[in-house]
Amino acid sequence: MSIGKFIVIEGIEGAGKSSAIEVVKKTLEEYQQEYITTREPGGTLLAESLREIVKSADHNETVTQETELLLMYAARSQLLANRILPALNEGKWVIGDRHDLSSRAYQGGGRQFDDNVMDMIANVTLKGFKPDLTLYLDISPEQGLSRAQARGELDRIEQEKIDFFHRVRDKYCQLAKNDNTIITINAGEDMVTVHQNIQQQVASFIKSTLESDK
Amino acid sequence: MSIGKFIVIEGIEGAGKSSAIEVVKKTLEEYQQEYITTREPGGTLLAESLREIVKSADHNETVTQETELLLMYAARSQLLANRILPALNEGKWVIGDRHDLSSRAYQGGGRQFDDNVMDMIANVTLKGFKPDLTLYLDISPEQGLSRAQARGELDRIEQEKIDFFHRVRDKYCQLAKNDNTIITINAGEDMVTVHQNIQQQVASFIKSTLESDK
Repeated sequence: MSIGKFIVIEGIEGAGKSSAIEVVKKTLEEYQQEYITTREPGGTLLAESLREIVKSADHNETVTQETELLLMYAARSQLLANRILPALNEGKWVIGDRHDLSSRAYQGGGRQFDDNVMDMIANVTLKGFKPDLTLYLDISPEQGLSRAQARGELDRIEQEKIDFFHRVRDKYCQLAKNDNTIITINAGEDMVTVHQNIQQQVASFIKSTLESDK
Repeated sequence: MSIGKFIVIEGIEGAGKSSAIEVVKKTLEEYQQEYITTREPGGTLLAESLREIVKSADHNETVTQETELLLMYAARSQLLANRILPALNEGKWVIGDRHDLSSRAYQGGGRQFDDNVMDMIANVTLKGFKPDLTLYLDISPEQGLSRAQARGELDRIEQEKIDFFHRVRDKYCQLAKNDNTIITINAGEDMVTVHQNIQQQVASFIKSTLESDK
């Protein structure tokens, strides 16, 4: 039994995360690797109820930036303890639709929480745990949001102004540049090319994992 | 119109917080002061749904210590922005059934989160805001819990072992000693005496507030 790894797909709205996850799944299946998929915020009963609270726009009360930040990490703590770590311990792979990098980009970049605050809350919640491989799907906010809008109604966070998403993207790019476990995929290219790039990156990562596990 | 103040009642289960709050209300009414009451975690629609999540024992999933900590502060952020600050700005008094000191005692003392972590998360959430007066009802865990048990079923946190509540009480006492806005009331005495002490403390605080506002 090989040791499973945690692969995360990241990017703004309309970057193509869902179809990218399908490519990752198919690639793991080609190598006969067992996996589970998760999404953030969410993925456990408690975390899904927090997702509902944080994404809903009709509270009749202000959702503070601090509440948004704290709920994202509370959901992450539940998911890590109850699904991600148990699966990895069983040797399964975990495919994550978003993880900590999303908070760094949206709450750190978009909402402009201080880096020290972000580090501290991440340390308290994750205690150094991080994905083995992150594929960041990079796309301009204009292109991403027009795709997302074509799909239907936007949630509370997706309703933010374009400046917000530029700050999110800038933070994503900055963090990706400084972490060699994050691979940037140009998600603005045609879908066939994007999927080929994802498939190649994931296949190469699986092969090196299986190799080092021999 | 006088400027309202924030008075908080604190203490472990069975210390007599509910009847203490009645005494505070009556005292404010004697001085014709307008007030609202709040409880933590809770007090807004969103915060009450977090209260339900954090106190419920049947999730079929582990509620991590980190989730508990983060949800307490998320609820506090909602309450502060949507109820406490607006009421104070209108010149009303606010009577709180628990506030930040509870997190310091339960999560800091009981769950043994580091002081630095507690300071940081409190700073992010409250940005220096604190109650004007806190009445800490001090009682031994044995006496408090036997009263609470007599009242009925215990929630997830109330089901903790006695050692937990000793750590909570120790932290309460330690923090009360170092903060002159916290007054310790011996809640182990007979109810008439306890209520007299509370009434005197609150009346004296109201008088000095009204005096300095002239």
